[in-house]
Amino acid sequence: MTPYQKLEKKFGRLLTLRDAEMMLHWDASTMMPSGGTAARSEQIAALKTVQHEILSAAETADDLDAASAENGLDQWQTANLREMRHIWTHANALDDGLVTALSKASMACETTWRTARPESDFDGILTQLDEVLRLVRESAQAKAGVLDCSPYDALLDGFTPGLRAADIDKVFGVLEEFLPEFLFHVLDHQKTKPKPDLPLGPFPSNNQRVLGIKLMETLGFDFNQGRLDVSLHPFSGGTPDDLRITTRYDETDFTTGLMGILHETGHALYDMGLPKKWRCQPVGEPRGMDIHESQSLLIEMQACRSREFIDYVTPLMREAFLAPTLMETFGCHGPEDDPHWNADNIYCHYINVRPGLIRVDADEVTYPAHIILRTKLERALIADDLSLRELPLAWSDGMWELLGLRPNDHSDGCLQDIHWFDGAWGYFPSYTLGAITAAQLFDAALKSDSSILPAIGEGNFKPLYEWLGKNIHQHGSLYETPELIEKATGTRLDPQIFISHLKQRYLQ
Amino acid sequence: MTPYQKLEKKFGRLLTLRDAEMMLHWDASTMMPSGGTAARSEQIAALKTVQHEILSAAETADDLDAASAENGLDQWQTANLREMRHIWTHANALDDGLVTALSKASMACETTWRTARPESDFDGILTQLDEVLRLVRESAQAKAGVLDCSPYDALLDGFTPGLRAADIDKVFGVLEEFLPEFLFHVLDHQKTKPKPDLPLGPFPSNNQRVLGIKLMETLGFDFNQGRLDVSLHPFSGGTPDDLRITTRYDETDFTTGLMGILHETGHALYDMGLPKKWRCQPVGEPRGMDIHESQSLLIEMQACRSREFIDYVTPLMREAFLAPTLMETFGCHGPEDDPHWNADNIYCHYINVRPGLIRVDADEVTYPAHIILRTKLERALIADDLSLRELPLAWSDGMWELLGLRPNDHSDGCLQDIHWFDGAWGYFPSYTLGAITAAQLFDAALKSDSSILPAIGEGNFKPLYEWLGKNIHQHGSLYETPELIEKATGTRLDPQIFISHLKQRYLQ
Repeated sequence: MTPYQKLEKKFGRLLTLRDAEMMLHWDASTMMPSGGTAARSEQIAALKTVQHEILSAAETADDLDAASAENGLDQWQTANLREMRHIWTHANALDDGLVTALSKASMACETTWRTARPESDFDGILTQLDEVLRLVRESAQAKAGVLDCSPYDALLDGFTPGLRAADIDKVFGVLEEFLPEFLFHVLDHQKTKPKPDLPLGPFPSNNQRVLGIKLMETLGFDFNQGRLDVSLHPFSGGTPDDLRITTRYDETDFTTGLMGILHETGHALYDMGLPKKWRCQPVGEPRGMDIHESQSLLIEMQACRSREFIDYVTPLMREAFLAPTLMETFGCHGPEDDPHWNADNIYCHYINVRPGLIRVDADEVTYPAHIILRTKLERALIADDLSLRELPLAWSDGMWELLGLRPNDHSDGCLQDIHWFDGAWGYFPSYTLGAITAAQLFDAALKSDSSILPAIGEGNFKPLYEWLGKNIHQHGSLYETPELIEKATGTRLDPQIFISHLKQRYLQ
Repeated sequence: MTPYQKLEKKFGRLLTLRDAEMMLHWDASTMMPSGGTAARSEQIAALKTVQHEILSAAETADDLDAASAENGLDQWQTANLREMRHIWTHANALDDGLVTALSKASMACETTWRTARPESDFDGILTQLDEVLRLVRESAQAKAGVLDCSPYDALLDGFTPGLRAADIDKVFGVLEEFLPEFLFHVLDHQKTKPKPDLPLGPFPSNNQRVLGIKLMETLGFDFNQGRLDVSLHPFSGGTPDDLRITTRYDETDFTTGLMGILHETGHALYDMGLPKKWRCQPVGEPRGMDIHESQSLLIEMQACRSREFIDYVTPLMREAFLAPTLMETFGCHGPEDDPHWNADNIYCHYINVRPGLIRVDADEVTYPAHIILRTKLERALIADDLSLRELPLAWSDGMWELLGLRPNDHSDGCLQDIHWFDGAWGYFPSYTLGAITAAQLFDAALKSDSSILPAIGEGNFKPLYEWLGKNIHQHGSLYETPELIEKATGTRLDPQIFISHLKQRYLQ
């Protein structure tokens, strides 16, 4: 075997073990009884350690060097080697002990967060969060030394290879300048239009589930290759041939859960569309978390909040909740022309802008403010410019400045997101970079194929997914992120396309 | 660290990875969509390979030798070292390639079996089964060389350390002599008694599930430490703090599924009772599959088929299926004194003897015949005295000889059990050894504490589980199997106690 072939075998094994680990995470979030937490934490730490050992073996470094000098590698193999080195560099900066400690501390802290959040108990989780932050900072510093960047850059690089805080500043800077005044105009403009008036519930979970499954199938999700379940923090996990989407149902409002399912389906269909030939090889992996979020947000924000889709989906919503027997059981009946179930009203609801405290409930216009705040805070925490004790106040001040609101308690403040507690520092910027990328991709797709939007209006996502498959999914990690975006859209990432989209949707 | 301490660390990691693997098996049987099969097979093979590498590292052998010469190990540590060596010996006899090949072949064959069985397609699975058998035989031969026993002995030793075919012959010989004539008497005696007349269904799966959960809790199962789900082949898996029981529901007959749940609960409560101090150490593991089956069969056959328990459970059964709304919906109503729901009738059903083709549906008297047949056949197949092509006929002749029946097709013949298809050769004897052990343990328990049976009659399993905890569960693998049985009951394994039990239950 050549050094490159040896690396393919080694990384195949590595990513297979990583997949096993992801399945155990899915189980922990959906199926596992509470008593299993300690044992599961050990299992996941053991799996992480094995992966780390594979990567830190001296032989791996030698093979990477030797393969770089190999002749005759094709474009995919060359890219695969580049991605291997990226994974290796991140792993090799850390020793086994730190990997195990961070894995265990994150799982323990996440477990505590599940009860601390509803109880708004920031003090009770502080010690554990402090430990996670300490270990994340230590990892970030170790990686920064190798990558020759700042510790926060090193964290960003782990989620989107090549991304640096300076890139974010440029893009977020444009939004920070644009959004406050724009929000003012939008709220003003909104006053001239009828207020959305949501249908009355309750909306039984199972009906929401049935409708969710129907729409997942409409988008192209194959239930021989995945499942839909319930978890506290919705996510899309699993492997490309066995995708595990989760959601949560609110029986008083089906609209959020439904969009959540569509969002996660966007993630899942990206994974399903990755090149089959390169399964469990780094180059066959999704192209970083920015692009991953762009795929979910393209579905949730661009395609499924389009007027065309809302016209298509409104009758299905009505059918899902107004079956004759339910009308009797729940008293939620109404004639077919009930204005609650009118597409104008549903559309109006889905593009309604209202500054709020909770990120996951935020509308498209105010969402970036949540991300800008979290990015600033986590950057300051990693750089040790802010202490965890000061976090709640800094959060409150930041929300006040950006959206004119202050949290009522920690549960709608700094305890609301899982990310910091489970160790995912440096992830937040992906959401807004993803939203900007999604706008740019959707714009390019519609320009390239004018049938995409009318087809979505008929519940046909094939033209859209043909374009996405060809321009994004099938490439896996062949190109680096800026190149992938440029190849697909003709230009580098440009926040002005997102801004145009916002103006068009919210000022008309 | 001393060599022994190094080994504790190593085996802790090993068993943690094994637990991870078990969870992935559970998921594959209960949750995984069909598209996930190939990836899962890779994941499990990768996990097995890692475990095998840990064991076959030269360092492990050195540590085992050095630890054996160590002074000052206490009784548990000494036993732990013995069990480590047992695991190591089995693993070290095989090379990495064989372990991976066997894991993949078994998973592929088991997957095919899931459709081949209902389709009675033995020819279609023959090539895959042949491959599994070839690899099992190769493993068995390699282990036989190291263990200095026959290949079949080596397989037995993998499930119950120290067990040899000669031990089985002795015990099974007694049964083979006793059972045919006894069966004749039982069937004759049965004619003098009223025939059982099962209540009419349907019995909705969910009602069966609710009743099952209630009885699991009655036995002492803690749902913070486990779950109940559905799978094609019921099993108890998971880890001691996160036990995953599965069952299947037949809506025309609730009695089998219910006993299945009680059986698996017996397994699970054994795991839950293992010494917490020795989690993920070999000495803290269950003491072989004979003892594991004794724990499930003690519950299913001894405790829950006792007249006392049937008196307790009959009203609960009636309640589970005769709720007023169900009476209306399913038309399965009847007065409280409906003779179908009478404890005499239910007891009569549960101790009814009727030779049949399906092992898992067999009664207590004819069950050993199924095991004796499978043991003979697998022994011959491993020794190459029988070919797989000849298996169906040999099966048919064996059933004819033992129970006077011939299979109608392969699905109620040699395709009915999962074991050979998923690579578990040498497992079958555990069922009957377990039944014999269960009779002996239950007999000793009742003699030691006369309150056990009356308590069971009130749905109180605490006295029974106190005895089992003290005499079996808390010892983990501290003692070898014959010693454990002797310590608990005062004598070595004695089939006469099982025979007395059968005589008492079936001839009175």
